[in-house]
Amino acid sequence: MKTLIKNVYLRGKTVDVLIEGNRFKKIDENIEEEADKIIDGKGKAIEPAFYNCHTHISMTILKGLGDDKELHDWLIHDIWPREAKMIPEDIYYASKFAILEMIKGGTVFCNDMYQYGEETMRAIDEMGIRGVVSKPEIDIPTPELLEKKKKIVLDFVDYKNINENRIIKGMSCHAIYTVSDNFLQFYSDIARKHNMPIHIHACETKVEVENCMKKHGCTPIEHLEKFGLLTEKTILAHCVHLSDNDIQIIKKHNTKIAHCPASNFKLKSGLMAFQKLINAGVLVTLGTDGSASNNSLGMLEEMKVCALNAKTQANSSKAGNVNDIYKTATVNGAKAFGIDAGVIEEGKIADFLLYDLNHYLLLPNFNLISNIIYSGQNECITDVFCDGKQIMCNRKVENEEKIIEDFIKLSEKYKNIK
Amino acid sequence: MKTLIKNVYLRGKTVDVLIEGNRFKKIDENIEEEADKIIDGKGKAIEPAFYNCHTHISMTILKGLGDDKELHDWLIHDIWPREAKMIPEDIYYASKFAILEMIKGGTVFCNDMYQYGEETMRAIDEMGIRGVVSKPEIDIPTPELLEKKKKIVLDFVDYKNINENRIIKGMSCHAIYTVSDNFLQFYSDIARKHNMPIHIHACETKVEVENCMKKHGCTPIEHLEKFGLLTEKTILAHCVHLSDNDIQIIKKHNTKIAHCPASNFKLKSGLMAFQKLINAGVLVTLGTDGSASNNSLGMLEEMKVCALNAKTQANSSKAGNVNDIYKTATVNGAKAFGIDAGVIEEGKIADFLLYDLNHYLLLPNFNLISNIIYSGQNECITDVFCDGKQIMCNRKVENEEKIIEDFIKLSEKYKNIK
Repeated sequence: MKTLIKNVYLRGKTVDVLIEGNRFKKIDENIEEEADKIIDGKGKAIEPAFYNCHTHISMTILKGLGDDKELHDWLIHDIWPREAKMIPEDIYYASKFAILEMIKGGTVFCNDMYQYGEETMRAIDEMGIRGVVSKPEIDIPTPELLEKKKKIVLDFVDYKNINENRIIKGMSCHAIYTVSDNFLQFYSDIARKHNMPIHIHACETKVEVENCMKKHGCTPIEHLEKFGLLTEKTILAHCVHLSDNDIQIIKKHNTKIAHCPASNFKLKSGLMAFQKLINAGVLVTLGTDGSASNNSLGMLEEMKVCALNAKTQANSSKAGNVNDIYKTATVNGAKAFGIDAGVIEEGKIADFLLYDLNHYLLLPNFNLISNIIYSGQNECITDVFCDGKQIMCNRKVENEEKIIEDFIKLSEKYKNIK
Repeated sequence: MKTLIKNVYLRGKTVDVLIEGNRFKKIDENIEEEADKIIDGKGKAIEPAFYNCHTHISMTILKGLGDDKELHDWLIHDIWPREAKMIPEDIYYASKFAILEMIKGGTVFCNDMYQYGEETMRAIDEMGIRGVVSKPEIDIPTPELLEKKKKIVLDFVDYKNINENRIIKGMSCHAIYTVSDNFLQFYSDIARKHNMPIHIHACETKVEVENCMKKHGCTPIEHLEKFGLLTEKTILAHCVHLSDNDIQIIKKHNTKIAHCPASNFKLKSGLMAFQKLINAGVLVTLGTDGSASNNSLGMLEEMKVCALNAKTQANSSKAGNVNDIYKTATVNGAKAFGIDAGVIEEGKIADFLLYDLNHYLLLPNFNLISNIIYSGQNECITDVFCDGKQIMCNRKVENEEKIIEDFIKLSEKYKNIK
């Protein structure tokens, strides 16, 4: 399959872009070649797609419940009673809908952590995006379930029914305060044995760090290091409260961070030291967290919140510059998961977006990247491609009416659970 | 002119809404009445429009220039050289475009402060929205210009060519560090004499407060009070750094605040104590600031940033609850400027929006207001009405292609200014 995009704007130039299979074959001023599909790129810009590096996509079904409550009240009254009633099919329909939201916002990848991950993988496959999916099992305060939980993890490792071209199974330790030392070591051993990505919530709140110091005499990062859980395939979500030594440890292991600024603000977790981590050479990616705590899966808005957080946290206008912010949402996410994409270059995997250059939100066009970050909204994105295939065309996604209809039906069930 | 909206969703009920002239005449379950225009509201929600209470709309022509620079560097190299080349016609075309952006995002009012305000008023009138417009003249460090500047202010007071139904002229003292005591008193006298709204940047940065303490031995709020500039028609923009006594003074005079959270974050001005001000009973409204320092005129996003700021600043999930945030962007803005609107009720002025209830960003519909604030984007809004008249229909604004074309032409001039 060959796709040829004619006369598209790429960083100050007008070019033609040829995609063959799932990669950019040629980018040049005038490509004369036969193609299965020819797209008129006039008035459009080609830019990388987004990689959402920490989320729980199916929690979209819980969006807007109990926004202004304290954590415990929210969990007990709004979240846990509903999570207890979830069946695998619900996760499938919720995931499909959440992926629709992601595609409409230019996102082609999620690093997801939630129950019934098999169903999320099914949805990811059908929708044509990429994902790393893991199932977080917890054994604090339910230690008697440990062996049962280990079995669930092993079954997931053995689960075969996935499209390996776009989907990777991961290991997720939920967090050090929900997973015992025994279970942490188990996760580490399994992940290393199977060369799997590891996904962990770490240093999200000050209380988490304080409790770890009390219980283990060290920081959560130091604690995770003991079990060999910090690998170059590990991604740590949040990392709001890191010591200088923590940053050195993360850097040493080439471990990645998934920064979730909107969720951090909304849950009053604090301001992550974005610029300090960039300066230290840590690979920072961006994530929306789940829609129960954001409440959105939009990476455009997340980039803006990321910039706002960075400048205020560092007390410097130079912090969180548009290029660093943009990389966080694009190429850094791809790099973190070994996806050879995230930039528009010959030879790279063709995950990309087309933007309407004359869209009122992207004018004046003095700095397209700044406009995308600070004023861009989903409606500026006209087309989305993942792995060389078009998955949104002129803002339409295949079967979107059906996906929305199924989700509305599903939401009736969750509305009525008390 | 009568408009009848059939079967529209209003806070949990399906109703018909009759608009006669510029007001809601009747809201009831089944209105059988002839109308000039009948709109099918099925699958749509009716909600108040937004009031942007602090902005410099024509600065949209400077959007995306020098985002990551220190203030002084930015002003000297990017802003001032371009502002010096502005002619009235530029302000007209830039304002038209900025108002297009506002309408597409559900905003029907701006409290604007910028040079050549007469042109901004012309644009506001033509686009069918509302505005309070003022022209900030400064005499620090150019005291020799004082008399000339006073003349400009008086000419503006005398300026007659405005549609008084939707447009009000205001007085703007730019800020205490750009306006001398002499000029402050002049502004105060003129505003009181003509019963005009007053628009001032106040307590935006810590440095502003510190310098005021050094120079005048009091806070900027205490300083403004001396000149009688705190009236119930005064709106103070930013107010990031207020003492408890400042809050009491503001409350005592029933002076209003325009909170600009995105600009405050981006310019690292700090986190405003939103919840503290709400608790004190101060009327807090919301503003985007200009697009050179946000960079957006979107009130949907501004509400989310407002909530994120409030929760983190107060270190409480209960701070910045969805109802308070929503009021800030809607009814509080209307109240601040004496516009009898901001809620959907019989007798009120008909400034309102229709939302697509089945839009993927507004589902699941457990809490519409939460969804509007946290995940809403412009594309969720289908129709905009101001003063009883439809100014956006199915996302189309009259002449939008021409407005965009003119703005692109204008942007060429500003691109080339060094």
